[in-house]
Amino acid sequence: MTGTRTETDSFGPLDVPADKYWGAQTQRSLMNFPIGWERQPVAIVRALGVIKQACAMANKARGKLDDGRADAIISAASEVVAGKLDDHFPLVVWQTGSGTQSNMNANEVIANRAIEIMGGEIGSKDPVHPNDHCNMGQSSNDTFPTAMHIACATTVRDTLLPGLRHLHAALDAKAKEWDAIIKIGRTHTMDATPLTLGQEFSGYAHQVAMGIERVEATLPRLHQLAQGGTAVGTGLNTPEGWGEEVAGHMADITGLPLVTAPNKFEALAAHDTLVELSGALKTVAASIYKIACDIRMLGSGPRCGLGELMLPENEPGSSIMPGKVNPTQVEAITQVCAHVMGNDAAVGFAGSQGHFELNVMKPMMAYNVLQSMQLLGDACVAFTDNCVAGIRADEDRIGKLMRESLMLVTALAPEIGYDNATTVAKTAHKNGTTLKEEAINLGFVDAETFERVVRPEQMIGPK
Amino acid sequence: MTGTRTETDSFGPLDVPADKYWGAQTQRSLMNFPIGWERQPVAIVRALGVIKQACAMANKARGKLDDGRADAIISAASEVVAGKLDDHFPLVVWQTGSGTQSNMNANEVIANRAIEIMGGEIGSKDPVHPNDHCNMGQSSNDTFPTAMHIACATTVRDTLLPGLRHLHAALDAKAKEWDAIIKIGRTHTMDATPLTLGQEFSGYAHQVAMGIERVEATLPRLHQLAQGGTAVGTGLNTPEGWGEEVAGHMADITGLPLVTAPNKFEALAAHDTLVELSGALKTVAASIYKIACDIRMLGSGPRCGLGELMLPENEPGSSIMPGKVNPTQVEAITQVCAHVMGNDAAVGFAGSQGHFELNVMKPMMAYNVLQSMQLLGDACVAFTDNCVAGIRADEDRIGKLMRESLMLVTALAPEIGYDNATTVAKTAHKNGTTLKEEAINLGFVDAETFERVVRPEQMIGPK
Amino acid sequence: MTGTRTETDSFGPLDVPADKYWGAQTQRSLMNFPIGWERQPVAIVRALGVIKQACAMANKARGKLDDGRADAIISAASEVVAGKLDDHFPLVVWQTGSGTQSNMNANEVIANRAIEIMGGEIGSKDPVHPNDHCNMGQSSNDTFPTAMHIACATTVRDTLLPGLRHLHAALDAKAKEWDAIIKIGRTHTMDATPLTLGQEFSGYAHQVAMGIERVEATLPRLHQLAQGGTAVGTGLNTPEGWGEEVAGHMADITGLPLVTAPNKFEALAAHDTLVELSGALKTVAASIYKIACDIRMLGSGPRCGLGELMLPENEPGSSIMPGKVNPTQVEAITQVCAHVMGNDAAVGFAGSQGHFELNVMKPMMAYNVLQSMQLLGDACVAFTDNCVAGIRADEDRIGKLMRESLMLVTALAPEIGYDNATTVAKTAHKNGTTLKEEAINLGFVDAETFERVVRPEQMIGPK
Amino acid sequence: MTGTRTETDSFGPLDVPADKYWGAQTQRSLMNFPIGWERQPVAIVRALGVIKQACAMANKARGKLDDGRADAIISAASEVVAGKLDDHFPLVVWQTGSGTQSNMNANEVIANRAIEIMGGEIGSKDPVHPNDHCNMGQSSNDTFPTAMHIACATTVRDTLLPGLRHLHAALDAKAKEWDAIIKIGRTHTMDATPLTLGQEFSGYAHQVAMGIERVEATLPRLHQLAQGGTAVGTGLNTPEGWGEEVAGHMADITGLPLVTAPNKFEALAAHDTLVELSGALKTVAASIYKIACDIRMLGSGPRCGLGELMLPENEPGSSIMPGKVNPTQVEAITQVCAHVMGNDAAVGFAGSQGHFELNVMKPMMAYNVLQSMQLLGDACVAFTDNCVAGIRADEDRIGKLMRESLMLVTALAPEIGYDNATTVAKTAHKNGTTLKEEAINLGFVDAETFERVVRPEQMIGPK
Repeated sequence: MTGTRTETDSFGPLDVPADKYWGAQTQRSLMNFPIGWERQPVAIVRALGVIKQACAMANKARGKLDDGRADAIISAASEVVAGKLDDHFPLVVWQTGSGTQSNMNANEVIANRAIEIMGGEIGSKDPVHPNDHCNMGQSSNDTFPTAMHIACATTVRDTLLPGLRHLHAALDAKAKEWDAIIKIGRTHTMDATPLTLGQEFSGYAHQVAMGIERVEATLPRLHQLAQGGTAVGTGLNTPEGWGEEVAGHMADITGLPLVTAPNKFEALAAHDTLVELSGALKTVAASIYKIACDIRMLGSGPRCGLGELMLPENEPGSSIMPGKVNPTQVEAITQVCAHVMGNDAAVGFAGSQGHFELNVMKPMMAYNVLQSMQLLGDACVAFTDNCVAGIRADEDRIGKLMRESLMLVTALAPEIGYDNATTVAKTAHKNGTTLKEEAINLGFVDAETFERVVRPEQMIGPK
Repeated sequence: MTGTRTETDSFGPLDVPADKYWGAQTQRSLMNFPIGWERQPVAIVRALGVIKQACAMANKARGKLDDGRADAIISAASEVVAGKLDDHFPLVVWQTGSGTQSNMNANEVIANRAIEIMGGEIGSKDPVHPNDHCNMGQSSNDTFPTAMHIACATTVRDTLLPGLRHLHAALDAKAKEWDAIIKIGRTHTMDATPLTLGQEFSGYAHQVAMGIERVEATLPRLHQLAQGGTAVGTGLNTPEGWGEEVAGHMADITGLPLVTAPNKFEALAAHDTLVELSGALKTVAASIYKIACDIRMLGSGPRCGLGELMLPENEPGSSIMPGKVNPTQVEAITQVCAHVMGNDAAVGFAGSQGHFELNVMKPMMAYNVLQSMQLLGDACVAFTDNCVAGIRADEDRIGKLMRESLMLVTALAPEIGYDNATTVAKTAHKNGTTLKEEAINLGFVDAETFERVVRPEQMIGPK
Repeated sequence: MTGTRTETDSFGPLDVPADKYWGAQTQRSLMNFPIGWERQPVAIVRALGVIKQACAMANKARGKLDDGRADAIISAASEVVAGKLDDHFPLVVWQTGSGTQSNMNANEVIANRAIEIMGGEIGSKDPVHPNDHCNMGQSSNDTFPTAMHIACATTVRDTLLPGLRHLHAALDAKAKEWDAIIKIGRTHTMDATPLTLGQEFSGYAHQVAMGIERVEATLPRLHQLAQGGTAVGTGLNTPEGWGEEVAGHMADITGLPLVTAPNKFEALAAHDTLVELSGALKTVAASIYKIACDIRMLGSGPRCGLGELMLPENEPGSSIMPGKVNPTQVEAITQVCAHVMGNDAAVGFAGSQGHFELNVMKPMMAYNVLQSMQLLGDACVAFTDNCVAGIRADEDRIGKLMRESLMLVTALAPEIGYDNATTVAKTAHKNGTTLKEEAINLGFVDAETFERVVRPEQMIGPK
Repeated sequence: MTGTRTETDSFGPLDVPADKYWGAQTQRSLMNFPIGWERQPVAIVRALGVIKQACAMANKARGKLDDGRADAIISAASEVVAGKLDDHFPLVVWQTGSGTQSNMNANEVIANRAIEIMGGEIGSKDPVHPNDHCNMGQSSNDTFPTAMHIACATTVRDTLLPGLRHLHAALDAKAKEWDAIIKIGRTHTMDATPLTLGQEFSGYAHQVAMGIERVEATLPRLHQLAQGGTAVGTGLNTPEGWGEEVAGHMADITGLPLVTAPNKFEALAAHDTLVELSGALKTVAASIYKIACDIRMLGSGPRCGLGELMLPENEPGSSIMPGKVNPTQVEAITQVCAHVMGNDAAVGFAGSQGHFELNVMKPMMAYNVLQSMQLLGDACVAFTDNCVAGIRADEDRIGKLMRESLMLVTALAPEIGYDNATTVAKTAHKNGTTLKEEAINLGFVDAETFERVVRPEQMIGPK
């Protein structure tokens, strides 16, 4: 900080850093909310830029803003969109629940940058006023929920879905690669009938594919924007058609299929769509948790675990046990999944707590949903590249375990009945013998029949 | 209980009540799991009946079951579907995580009832064996998840959606009825610009409408059935085409658009669709919580609250305060909503905990999701009939509060600027005067302009 | 139902079943809240009896109630305490959030039973009136929270703690029994340095012991009673010293160290102590979940899993796979634990939602906490008796796995340095050889030193 | 970054920034885990410094480390403790679940700094080796859980409890200041019997006081340290008495009453104490949520709400509504509370997910608990200073509302009976009249009796 200048709001003057564009309301928020480590996510900041740019375009087109001011605002806002002014958005998540202070942060930064562009004096509010010009036709109450939806939709498109698709492709490739490796199935964690390793991984791939579907199923509602509701949803101080018009501009700027929300009262007072999206993220997290835990356990060992899979070795695993290598990518992504579940609980709680015309848990809801998506997206890429893609199957061990299993007896049940088959399995278990030995000893089948019926390669599908 | 008979399973003989159809495995479960109060929901029991009936039909058609046995099983199973044998399903939720014991309960009851139909001796397993005949082509591992989906889909159709639609209709009717009542808006619980009471309720109605959409969006996946996967998803011991065939029969029996799941490994090892559905229920719960709390607070009083709404008086409200009437329906449904959020946390946890080829949290997941739907459906009906439908608006009080509000100054802002309008509002607040007085005193407008600009009826929409 | 009689409240007359003691307010609640399957827990009903008995005793002592009425009420209330009148409490959980209707249910049942004892006409409110006499000096607002605390404290004492102690004793016995069995340790699910099976189970036992401590740490606050706060916490319509006096009677009746709460405003408006207790239950659930999952995985197999433990076989495990036996008790108790976590989320939510002088999520909070305790208590007993107590160690397999582990190299690290020890382990892993072979081949130690240093029995503690 | 140097671990050489002390394992973690925004909290980093310092002191005293190396390590570690090396700990939360990489980060930084102190070449591992010397007698498996407990205990002492005590003092002062202001009570959000504003705030103060008790009740377990368990809890590679000795040093360094954990197997494999602590934090969050929401609603208005309290005006409240001031501190702290509830769900989940000898959700659990405490502590201070301390009571409005209330009739009930009192209240409500008018009109009392009995100042306590 190289000095300060004086900025003013309706509560009076305040010193702000001279090298920052923000004004008095931003500075006041910094003073009043010294809470925690968590800043407004960059995705929110840039989405506010999208809104300010779109509204200035509409205000210009309707002649509400003269070309000079409008162009300066559009130019300044586009710098916010491009991420050039991220450092001028210092506010924390834990501020007013409407996000008003972050909206004003955007208004102040864009106003001062626009003043600068127009050759005026920063902090003078002339020729560009943060409220009268940058916030024209807007309220924090429609702007911030719009920013929440745009930030989330952008993160879905650019981070979450790419991550999920990357993981899906890797799992699907493994499913195909391992289609001929027959292995023991496990139900209740106990030995069960066989399947192929490819079939097992096809289940994982299908989980992720359906997760992508689940997220996509929420998008029609996520692409609906509150903008145009202004203070309480009525659209006071906006012209007719405003919501549709600015949604169109925002769609152009972002490349997202954004539309205006059909009911603005709902769009300000509730954030059910974020609760819904978070529910989809929680479902995805549950899926990935299951997949990752299976991979961990199938790769356990190297000598005293299940040992069917060999996971890539990425780093030393222990500060005390030499040579130890651990499933660290599994651990990172499972921690992420558990965290996403916690975020979902917070988001559901917050979503239920609107009052009258406004829900005032907005920044916290946005933060949690955006964090969940960033973490899932990033972790999917790391897990895929540093783990899934490099897994190898230990075919020797897989084959050995499979052939020893007593549950191959299931193939005999249609032949000799469930109760007799039970006796065969229990006897072999008790005696430490093979199914074949006991099935013959007990007189239920002859060797030939056993060989014909109990064939793992014929137990992996209907017949 | 009028005596006992002896039933047998592979663990030996057990006495069971003579007047019940269940067998040794059911009885053994009763003995081994004396845990809690919660029984397998009736919806699960009847869904098991659907499966047994459908499979016997398919087994008959394919000649796997002779007509005599098949018809007896079909007949007995149809009694389960019709709810005639509910009393023969005594098991608790907290049993084996695969639901095997409830599947065997169904097999045993249907076998004994079929034996009875065929004139045999109950408990003899002849001519109908619970495993060999009633469970033919099935495993608990595909049967129970199928029952979970059928039970949930039935409850969505018969309980949840009717409840939500009932509530939606009542809220929507109020939105239309009250379209001309202009009231103060409230943001941050503070006085804000006006809207109509109808607009406010249109937001509530829209929340519920979108909740219905959200639930319906999950149905394509809920209508997919695991049946045909048998033990580990491979379909071992089923003929080709079995999954499609039995899904068809089950669709016929239930009237639901049921289809076979595209990947049976996923369908046994994960219950992501229940997690997804629960997420939608949680979203619905958050919506309703918000709506109910608003109604409660708008109806608070009668003399010391907001008092805009008058809620129906249904019962005495206090054992000590004579004449007190409370928003009890709000309290019932908000408790339900909070409970649904807890259920969702449990379901998400459980959904992440599958191991290898099977998730063994099945009965608990089904119980929670079914309970959430039953409670939401029931509570929506009670809340609608005993509260929403009978709410009256106190138009005198609504008008009085609205006219006193300082936030009508917002209409002046485009005329005199945000900063001057702020001065008007703050001065009126400080002096306890009206906006008009101060706007004129401060020299910002004349009386005529004020009257022209500050008109609540023109503040409830764009212009 | 053998007919009806007419009962009356301030809303008018209603028919109630002739063979039940409840009155019009109870009947009205049944009509107004047809929601779900869940009734007020019996523990709450009996706790209401405790309160009514205690208050009548105090009112008699102070001469507020004449002896005739007082004795009849005391007698009737003691029948509620003894569980003789459980069938007369039909109300569901999802009623008014203050529990007023259940308090009135108690007042009505006790009044009618007292009238009967005194030879009056049931329903006449003469000589005993439900409000004026049974509820004398009380409000639902202090009575129901008092019932919540008493019901919870009773369930802690009679169900939860006995269950936990039972489990602890069994785990502790195993820890001692298996103190000499050296096994492979597993960290990150990967082979690690050895420990004894007894040490492993000592960790489980310690978790449960600390869980008991955690629950007990909440009891000082749970034993504080709201009774005496009446309507809003002020104690209106009670005499001086009333809270202390009735708490004393309630302590006598229950044998619990009950005391009056130091601040009645808090005791009505918040139920933080239930949130706290639920947090302790959640912690206990997390502990048990971990223990049960370990036991499941250590017992996995019989031939393709870890197979270190042999769990008792209690019932047939599969309807399709003959001879399969599953860790069903693990599955029951892990489902319980997950459910308890969901309940905790609901309770925390509800606890935050008080308004002004009253929290109106009372019945739901009590239901969830009581259910959590019942389930944990019951499941601990079933898990202990049907699983833990009967576990056997497969010493052959345990020894074999331990001796093969590469992580015994850790004992070499202080001797040859971490980096060299790493080389030994990695080389042995790569070559499928033993640590000893490679340590000598690589020239780091001679055979004698290896034998002296790498001794599992010296790796299970400091030296 | 001004260039790089080469560091090496058992996986090979890597370039690291020349101006940072970290080594190859840290750099490898940065490359392998590009996940999210969240770094290891500074409290964890400094706690690792405490451990390294304490262990070097013990190793020096036992002669395991020569004085030169020991003193250099102690000196370097003390710089970590003092926060001088925070910038050298770049790792994210989402790494290996044991926190091994952060432990190695500490070993590498301290080794290189110690090498520097001793005049060696950074990166040479000579004369100080990160594993052999800095990690001597330690494993990540005991070090990281120790760091978790120390970091949490420090944050409890330095941030959480000061914040709670600050809030408590302010609420308690208001309770005393407002002891004579009689106001309407509200139950079910409906008018109820009166109490003083001081009584109302005494309930809030008591909630916070009990929250402090609840947190303190967990400290005995939080002060127990895993250090000395090394790899799996056995204490392999430590001398006898090591755990006690290093706990003593850590107590000296931190000023906390730290002790060695009684069972190290539990201390590595489970983090139940963090689950317990999180449960206490959740309870505190529920308390504060309730308090803050009440304050918000009591301060609602200024003209159309309850308006009993006047909250400090800290900043402009709206970008569109001039002059609007909002309860922003309430909104910040309620968002924090909701977030803490989400964190608690994540922590409970993670706590249940240990496997065998290690729970590998460590960094995520620590992050969530530390964040919850930081947010609660900070928000309590901001809420107290910027809101609670400056609240003023609007005595005129409070008195007016109280006198209009119909629930003063409760004082009449012991005089004329509950049913008659009900009639008085209902008639006055219906007619818009006063209780006194109707009580006399209905013939239940005369004016003198009414005046004698219905006196608000006598309704605020027992008599």
